[in-house]
Amino acid sequence: MSPHFSRRELLNFVAAAGGTHAVYQTSRALGLLADSTPPASLNLSPVGSAARTAVVLGAGIAGLTVAYELERAGYGVTIIEASHRVGGRNMTVRSGDVIDELGQRQVCQFDDEPNLYFNAGPARIPGHHQRTLKYCRDLNVPLIVKANFARNAYHQDDASFAGRPVRLGHYVADARGFLSELLHKAVDKNQFDQALSADDRERLLEFVTAFGDLDDSGNYAGSRRAGYARGYQSPEEYRSPLPFDDMLGGDFWKWVYTASENPDWGDPLMEVPGGMDGIVQAFVRELSSPITLNAPVQSIDVTADGVDVVFCQQGVLHQVSADYCFNSIPAHFLPGIPSNLPREYKNALAALKPNKLMKIGLQMKRRFWEEEGIYGGTTLTSQPIGELWYPSHDIHAQKGVVIGAYTHGDGCATWSTMTPSERLRAAAECGERIHSGYAELVESGVSVPWERMNHMMGCSVHWTEALRQQHFDVLRRPVAGRHYLVGDQMSYHPTWQEGAFASAEYALLDLDKRVRSDSAVGRLA
Amino acid sequence: MSPHFSRRELLNFVAAAGGTHAVYQTSRALGLLADSTPPASLNLSPVGSAARTAVVLGAGIAGLTVAYELERAGYGVTIIEASHRVGGRNMTVRSGDVIDELGQRQVCQFDDEPNLYFNAGPARIPGHHQRTLKYCRDLNVPLIVKANFARNAYHQDDASFAGRPVRLGHYVADARGFLSELLHKAVDKNQFDQALSADDRERLLEFVTAFGDLDDSGNYAGSRRAGYARGYQSPEEYRSPLPFDDMLGGDFWKWVYTASENPDWGDPLMEVPGGMDGIVQAFVRELSSPITLNAPVQSIDVTADGVDVVFCQQGVLHQVSADYCFNSIPAHFLPGIPSNLPREYKNALAALKPNKLMKIGLQMKRRFWEEEGIYGGTTLTSQPIGELWYPSHDIHAQKGVVIGAYTHGDGCATWSTMTPSERLRAAAECGERIHSGYAELVESGVSVPWERMNHMMGCSVHWTEALRQQHFDVLRRPVAGRHYLVGDQMSYHPTWQEGAFASAEYALLDLDKRVRSDSAVGRLA
Repeated sequence: MSPHFSRRELLNFVAAAGGTHAVYQTSRALGLLADSTPPASLNLSPVGSAARTAVVLGAGIAGLTVAYELERAGYGVTIIEASHRVGGRNMTVRSGDVIDELGQRQVCQFDDEPNLYFNAGPARIPGHHQRTLKYCRDLNVPLIVKANFARNAYHQDDASFAGRPVRLGHYVADARGFLSELLHKAVDKNQFDQALSADDRERLLEFVTAFGDLDDSGNYAGSRRAGYARGYQSPEEYRSPLPFDDMLGGDFWKWVYTASENPDWGDPLMEVPGGMDGIVQAFVRELSSPITLNAPVQSIDVTADGVDVVFCQQGVLHQVSADYCFNSIPAHFLPGIPSNLPREYKNALAALKPNKLMKIGLQMKRRFWEEEGIYGGTTLTSQPIGELWYPSHDIHAQKGVVIGAYTHGDGCATWSTMTPSERLRAAAECGERIHSGYAELVESGVSVPWERMNHMMGCSVHWTEALRQQHFDVLRRPVAGRHYLVGDQMSYHPTWQEGAFASAEYALLDLDKRVRSDSAVGRLA
Repeated sequence: MSPHFSRRELLNFVAAAGGTHAVYQTSRALGLLADSTPPASLNLSPVGSAARTAVVLGAGIAGLTVAYELERAGYGVTIIEASHRVGGRNMTVRSGDVIDELGQRQVCQFDDEPNLYFNAGPARIPGHHQRTLKYCRDLNVPLIVKANFARNAYHQDDASFAGRPVRLGHYVADARGFLSELLHKAVDKNQFDQALSADDRERLLEFVTAFGDLDDSGNYAGSRRAGYARGYQSPEEYRSPLPFDDMLGGDFWKWVYTASENPDWGDPLMEVPGGMDGIVQAFVRELSSPITLNAPVQSIDVTADGVDVVFCQQGVLHQVSADYCFNSIPAHFLPGIPSNLPREYKNALAALKPNKLMKIGLQMKRRFWEEEGIYGGTTLTSQPIGELWYPSHDIHAQKGVVIGAYTHGDGCATWSTMTPSERLRAAAECGERIHSGYAELVESGVSVPWERMNHMMGCSVHWTEALRQQHFDVLRRPVAGRHYLVGDQMSYHPTWQEGAFASAEYALLDLDKRVRSDSAVGRLA
């Protein structure tokens, strides 16, 4: 499989390699190496003796980022948070934590052990989320690789294989094999509109053969890629091909590829050991600004030279006035909060609807998935639970917390109307369809339906193309240069932490431009 | 994307779920869940006062496993190792370590830091290597996920894209898209031998459309799966499709799929934090048997009631006699060691040739790969280095050790005849083809060509199908029930630790059967 070079060829190659910088520059120019734009440098103009102030509404990732950057530039910052905790949807659930669901509070009954937790909000960081990674680096938040796609996890579709779970690696290899076999036949007969040249046909047949691991006659008869059927005390034997009819029969194949091929879910992904809220804790360690909890905002007024915010704490109203306001309150709440925001702005807000997302964390008595050769990853099901995630941290510990349901959009509806204990029972029974004995291994669990969580009632904004074109720019523009709407809701990547960081970056760069321009005017005056 | 259930459907579903055990049993019977055979239970019959003894030749994974299990059963064990170190090819290279290459010893000059090391031998553990995982669990060896396939790592082929590196995720998505488009055209025209039914055709078109992320007309016009072309401050934009001609032009596409689809290399893989030799250290901690280093074996004689082994240490010959011998000396050395092994056995040994494998570890001044969004994984190249591995442990540390070359078989030939410093220079220049400025970031490096390492001179046995049929069973059978050949070389999974564990398991089970049968005879007498 390795390329062959003679010693002389290799040394010549080395001697000639001086020109590689040029090659690299060319490839950059051609966009072959293009990647997501790196985060902007946030060297905000220090305010020094000017003593500017800012009030930050919401202590989620966007609010914390804004506060952190403004503090560093010398701003006086106040953070107001409606709920009882810092972090927003960046929420790691551990023993004793309160799940503040409307009307049915839960208290997490997991064992009090450092490996028993789950991330109810963001749980994965891909390598191109450069802002998230930059802050992890700057704030010394450790990262480990998280297994997301796992060959050994299952695909379970009631409409295929009589509902039986099939290993993902098996399914993927066979799907590729069958499609390649069909294409091989078509190419062999050369029945395209434009006849392929003999040479092109030959190359295409080779390509397809390699792609699907076909045999010499262009047939798919199973592949090593599908996985071993036996151990290593006897000659290798691979899993038999699945019935292709069954693959075509299900709707599920639409998801399998989406799940591992979405770049934001593509391996390798990362997580914070001990819980994603390690990022929140790191911000809190760095911040000296006060964070006022349990303080829902009652009104927002943009004035000639700043913003007045009234909040309520323990039944008492307080007002805070600042030069600037960075507001990460969920957009769908804002129409209900008295404010003097412009009509166009209010109309835009009124048009937005939140996304829905629900996760259930289940503490399992035993790491049964490891006994099945599954070390992390995600099983994709046609059950109401949607996905089932296995932890890939703390391998071989005694217990572990699985994400026993992960569903969003309309999939949340039925779960919303259930009690927490009904949800656990339903999730456990769905798990039984994949893993025999699953229900008995559940020790405790909590459900986090974001569309029912107090002070949240949703999960970011559901931006359609039309809404985006009509309202996004209006809402991103600061009101009177004083009031900025932020949060992942105000980004091109809603529901991701990267979106929250990007929204903070955008607002801070805009602010900085205005401050620098003001200073210049000041100096001229 | 989530399935939709009404509340009633969901509760009915839960009520009906009692039958899932039966479903699971059925699926097991149909082999849908088949997996590699679990490791045998090694409850060796304790020898007690019988005081049996064993000599183990070679302190690699197989030898250590045999010693560990025999000790637990009460055997008196002596381990003889030819080289200066324990572990065999399980070798993690750190600051100050000696690379005992024939004629050109190297001393590793990496910084003395816990994250700066590389695994010159085994480096990855897949979830179905049940024996390796069992011993990690039993010996409390921690495991972490290792990124192997990374969407953001590169594919670099001199014969494609003018030799420019292309992100693997981009390549894979586009290859799938183009093939799907072709197949879509073929299906659309229904030009197969057996005409598809209208319904089948419809389903197949849907399948292919989802598989390749085609547009509504069945064309591939790029995909989100290929990765983002820009950041998150502007509407999403994806990488433009690569020229398909260029894909067909290279030979490299044969590897891309092989590399991530081989089940032994399929995600998620695991590694031992701090180095794979954590497994070796764990065995050494557990063992009380003496391990004699620097002690090459000079002769092996199978006697009527045991085995005599002569070894040489510091110029002095020593003899050790034991009831049993477990021999993991590389098969290609054995014909050169005087012994009374049977002729058929010696003929078999003489027919075997070793594999070749070489790795180069390079300490890099800066983790430049993380700046390119690469957090672990493997770049596949058509250069003499073969693969380039990025570490996925100790993310965001200042420095890191990449595997700057990983090649095997004939690909090793040119590197073998170079000096260590020539190798480093060549590897650095190859790296320049992928990463501009690479060579200047290399601080130090070591090369480990196993086919030139003292007491090794190869990497397991190169078993062809013919050799396997002719000689494997002969060599696996113990000589006179006393002398067992072990090591990954004596398994169906050579070069993997799992093979070494499997060979030890096989030999120990065979021994135990004989011991139990002897005891039965003894009791009868």
